[in-house]
Amino acid sequence: MNRQSASVNQSHTLQTRLVIPPDTNHIETIFGGQVLSYIDEIAAISAMRHCNKVVVTASIDSVNFVGAAKVGDILILEAFVSSTGKTSMEVYVKVYSENLLEKVKKVTTTSFLTMVAVDDKGTPTEVPLVVPETEEQKWLFQTSQQRREQRKRTVNQDAPLVKHK
Amino acid sequence: MNRQSASVNQSHTLQTRLVIPPDTNHIETIFGGQVLSYIDEIAAISAMRHCNKVVVTASIDSVNFVGAAKVGDILILEAFVSSTGKTSMEVYVKVYSENLLEKVKKVTTTSFLTMVAVDDKGTPTEVPLVVPETEEQKWLFQTSQQRREQRKRTVNQDAPLVKHK
Amino acid sequence: MNRQSASVNQSHTLQTRLVIPPDTNHIETIFGGQVLSYIDEIAAISAMRHCNKVVVTASIDSVNFVGAAKVGDILILEAFVSSTGKTSMEVYVKVYSENLLEKVKKVTTTSFLTMVAVDDKGTPTEVPLVVPETEEQKWLFQTSQQRREQRKRTVNQDAPLVKHK
Amino acid sequence: MNRQSASVNQSHTLQTRLVIPPDTNHIETIFGGQVLSYIDEIAAISAMRHCNKVVVTASIDSVNFVGAAKVGDILILEAFVSSTGKTSMEVYVKVYSENLLEKVKKVTTTSFLTMVAVDDKGTPTEVPLVVPETEEQKWLFQTSQQRREQRKRTVNQDAPLVKHK
Amino acid sequence: MNRQSASVNQSHTLQTRLVIPPDTNHIETIFGGQVLSYIDEIAAISAMRHCNKVVVTASIDSVNFVGAAKVGDILILEAFVSSTGKTSMEVYVKVYSENLLEKVKKVTTTSFLTMVAVDDKGTPTEVPLVVPETEEQKWLFQTSQQRREQRKRTVNQDAPLVKHK
Amino acid sequence: MNRQSASVNQSHTLQTRLVIPPDTNHIETIFGGQVLSYIDEIAAISAMRHCNKVVVTASIDSVNFVGAAKVGDILILEAFVSSTGKTSMEVYVKVYSENLLEKVKKVTTTSFLTMVAVDDKGTPTEVPLVVPETEEQKWLFQTSQQRREQRKRTVNQDAPLVKHK
Ligand SMILES: CC(C)(COP(=O)(O)OP(=O)(O)OC[C@H]1O[C@@H](n2cnc3c(N)ncnc32)[C@H](O)[C@@H]1OP(=O)(O)O)[C@@H](O)C(=O)NCCC(=O)NCCS
Ligand SMILES: CC(C)(COP(=O)(O)OP(=O)(O)OC[C@H]1O[C@@H](n2cnc3c(N)ncnc32)[C@H](O)[C@@H]1OP(=O)(O)O)[C@@H](O)C(=O)NCCC(=O)NCCS
Ligand SMILES: CC(C)(COP(=O)(O)OP(=O)(O)OC[C@H]1O[C@@H](n2cnc3c(N)ncnc32)[C@H](O)[C@@H]1OP(=O)(O)O)[C@@H](O)C(=O)NCCC(=O)NCCS
Ligand SMILES: CC(C)(COP(=O)(O)OP(=O)(O)OC[C@H]1O[C@@H](n2cnc3c(N)ncnc32)[C@H](O)[C@@H]1OP(=O)(O)O)[C@@H](O)C(=O)NCCC(=O)NCCS
Repeated sequence: MNRQSASVNQSHTLQTRLVIPPDTNHIETIFGGQVLSYIDEIAAISAMRHCNKVVVTASIDSVNFVGAAKVGDILILEAFVSSTGKTSMEVYVKVYSENLLEKVKKVTTTSFLTMVAVDDKGTPTEVPLVVPETEEQKWLFQTSQQRREQRKRTVNQDAPLVKHK
Repeated sequence: MNRQSASVNQSHTLQTRLVIPPDTNHIETIFGGQVLSYIDEIAAISAMRHCNKVVVTASIDSVNFVGAAKVGDILILEAFVSSTGKTSMEVYVKVYSENLLEKVKKVTTTSFLTMVAVDDKGTPTEVPLVVPETEEQKWLFQTSQQRREQRKRTVNQDAPLVKHK
Repeated sequence: MNRQSASVNQSHTLQTRLVIPPDTNHIETIFGGQVLSYIDEIAAISAMRHCNKVVVTASIDSVNFVGAAKVGDILILEAFVSSTGKTSMEVYVKVYSENLLEKVKKVTTTSFLTMVAVDDKGTPTEVPLVVPETEEQKWLFQTSQQRREQRKRTVNQDAPLVKHK
Repeated sequence: MNRQSASVNQSHTLQTRLVIPPDTNHIETIFGGQVLSYIDEIAAISAMRHCNKVVVTASIDSVNFVGAAKVGDILILEAFVSSTGKTSMEVYVKVYSENLLEKVKKVTTTSFLTMVAVDDKGTPTEVPLVVPETEEQKWLFQTSQQRREQRKRTVNQDAPLVKHK
Repeated sequence: MNRQSASVNQSHTLQTRLVIPPDTNHIETIFGGQVLSYIDEIAAISAMRHCNKVVVTASIDSVNFVGAAKVGDILILEAFVSSTGKTSMEVYVKVYSENLLEKVKKVTTTSFLTMVAVDDKGTPTEVPLVVPETEEQKWLFQTSQQRREQRKRTVNQDAPLVKHK
Repeated sequence: MNRQSASVNQSHTLQTRLVIPPDTNHIETIFGGQVLSYIDEIAAISAMRHCNKVVVTASIDSVNFVGAAKVGDILILEAFVSSTGKTSMEVYVKVYSENLLEKVKKVTTTSFLTMVAVDDKGTPTEVPLVVPETEEQKWLFQTSQQRREQRKRTVNQDAPLVKHK
């Protein structure tokens, strides 16, 4: 039987959010944890749109917060499935913040997450292949094998840590 | 002038949380984003306890979710400052989940965050040195330089992504 | 002095949200009030993008919930400024729900809100004109005067109510 | 078989809420969406008290926000079932805000919602008749047919919008 | 100068809330902490209405949860200022739960809180006297001195605990 | 059959929380109800750790808030089971607040809660005995019978109140 496939566009998801006081600290900067939580939500929606199944987060690659977002700014999140394994999907998420009053837009962070499709018992199940279309999508698709291998090395690096627990 | 220093114990922080329905998806598993948000909160508290200043999250290293947590489980988070730069602190966070009814405890994930001390304008300011005491703390302190260099490589890897935005 | 103008595209905003248990009632249907709150948030963001000022909600036209959304569905909200007054903007919001597992998408509701740009003291201030481009945008722009008049009639109908308070 | 009936008093519901920072924007004014969400919650409670069944929101008539509420104000909401159809109930909601420190009370908005009683599958089921008692209740009861017809016209006006989606 | 006074009715406050999934545990019973948080909110509103000042919670007398509330029930809270000191107000709160589908209403708990009026720096400031009117209000007013003395004894009982910290 | 027993250490639980704007009032002081809700959550976790069963809150003894906590402070909560009945557990909770920037730590409150272990139907079920170890734990264990009797007196004092409802 042939495996299904879907265009990247099927999983392409946009999110726009207003930064409000409860999301921010003393100096009115959004908490990193709040941004991470938004990133995980949009990655889950994007992955579900690709595979039409329930998904769980297996991992998130390192995230660098290169710019802060303040109360009153808007956050723009964009996500799509950039490559697939058998049951896992790599989701690419970009986050911008925009100060509307001063008309300044800047990158907050970019991130890769691995989401896994699961059935009702939490067992991984197969996902469709993804078909990249734009230049950016193709580039991410081609470089995904490399990131996949680096992720495996990271898991191995974590091993000695567990020894110390 | 000599720079201040503080024992790892000063930043050692514990958190115990009950997993409740709003934190979970369809199959009653906690959202990865919820765990990431808890990790960031405890890392911020731990770093603030070390430096007695406001802090922001500069980065979080890759996070692997090795075990799921379900509604009714408790999550136990532990954090401490494992090494320091000039204005940045590396915080190590361990997360366990425990099913109290079945008396099963498992590792959910471990994670490193870089928190930066800032003044009222968000400008990085100096932090005290950290003094490791236990064997685990010493090992993490000694290996921190290595992780720091790997983080710089990751930042460089992210560069081509921004090109595509 | 000539008044500024902006394309509808500048205010075009997309939102995708997962329906989670805390948003729903007994029979796992999302609360109408939750949807209304999402509609108001996206309308505020859209209006702020048009005028680059702080905005407040002046009114929302009648909303008919033609289809329910359930736990696990996604809600897709789309908003743009459809016409402008001197200090007010009419924002059009469409809401769909999608059951990803069963691949069914349906309209939840459509809605018009009036948002007013205000300064720090809450005083209304002028907004740019809006320039419609697509057929739908042009149709909404042309019919806006009609809705504006109907809104005035509604305000008058509310008058006897206040008498009874 | 005779249909049951209940006095308006059975569904009369009062709510008093403190406006806190997370409910407000930049200039410390409550979000319209927050008020709409409170209105829907009290309307649902009021309707459930009338019919002792689960209810869903079918529609909300246009809402005009005539006065702003600020952080530290209290909001007072009052709701009752003003008339009934076969399976639907019209709920009338009045909202006041009160600045306790300055002893100023003002109307925020008034609103009509249509709530429909449903069974476990979401199918509409019959509700008791309502018996108005005060002058205000009687006036609202008598004018309800008129509002019902206007609502039908509104639904028809929405039709061309859906064409454009 | 004569001290101001106000009827109990000025502080009489009603609250009706729907018990929703995020407020409940495994067996769909509301968390005690959620009820305590509702009790404190209504007591604060009631006290603010009496004195038209900002208030803080000085103490809450022991609370017995004699009946559970479940998802879908409504909680009805009632509060009023039952007696006053110089800067403190005793607020009496009653909580009922009602299962609308089964038409069963039961007492959840009753509680006394002491709220203190404070100025911008948190310093206690004088409050108006309260004038009881109904039989219940008079009885509570007359017995308040007794409760006040018991409260002082409780504070003394807490003293040895602090020694052990 | 011999009844099981467990050391106090098994239920010893620590919580550290950052006070953020949504938890606070006008003058940036945390709401008493927020602290009560944190106290109940940690007491529930502590009791579940002792008995490995679902628990409900039967009562909370009077709570005196001797010190305020402000935005940006951290709250430190500590809880353990101090004595046991047949199905009930007395949990002792201590709360401190710490201003990290000014390095000031103070007691916020101490509190005793009675948690009852229940099965799926909410019926009380037996819990293990608790074995105190430190001096503080032993003192609390020895004085628990006294508090238990005082609690019964309190329940009786509440009786006339219910008459007046
Ligand atoms: C973190 C931040 C303050 C760094 O500012 P900067 O102008 O790069 O400052 P510097 O170059 O002086 O770096 C300050 C420290 O941060 C470290 N740092 C900066 N970016 C980093 C990253 N991505 N990962 C790890 N460390 C980083 C630097 O190595 C330096 O450490 P050191 O003083 O111990 O040597 C800035 O990038 C920022 O404000 N980011 C947003 C933070 C935020 O708001 N996060 C929440 C969600 S967006
Ligand atoms: C409301 C709903 C149950 C009506 O279903 P339906 O198949 O149209 O059922 P019916 O045609 O039998 O109508 C039932 C009643 O609702 C009324 N009704 C339906 N749509 C309405 C609207 N937009 N405005 C006012 N009343 C409406 C009908 O007039 C009828 O009233 P009556 O029995 O008193 O004469 C259905 O549209 C629905 O489930 N909507 C989503 C509700 C929801 O989940 N809201 C929350 C946010 S999405
Ligand atoms: C309540 C508080 C303002 C009292 O301050 P104080 O320095 O003790 O002031 P005073 O001694 O003048 O007492 C003021 C009033 O409070 C009463 N009071 C103080 N502690 C009390 C307690 N534990 N229980 C009951 N009443 C109390 C006093 O009897 C006095 O009442 P009166 O004026 O009617 O005679 C202070 O303890 C405080 O700020 N506590 C924290 C409040 C808070 O933030 N709560 C939220 C969660 S921490
Ligand atoms: C707590 C509850 C289960 C007790 O049920 P009950 O029918 O009174 O059961 P019992 O008489 O067998 O009492 C069970 C234990 O609870 C204790 N208890 C009951 N009420 C208590 C109170 N107000 N304070 C302290 N302990 C109490 C009893 O002393 C007994 O303890 P023991 O077994 O150690 O001797 C029941 O009152 C209840 O469900 N309350 C609501 C709990 C809840 O949902 N709280 C959250 C907010 S409403």
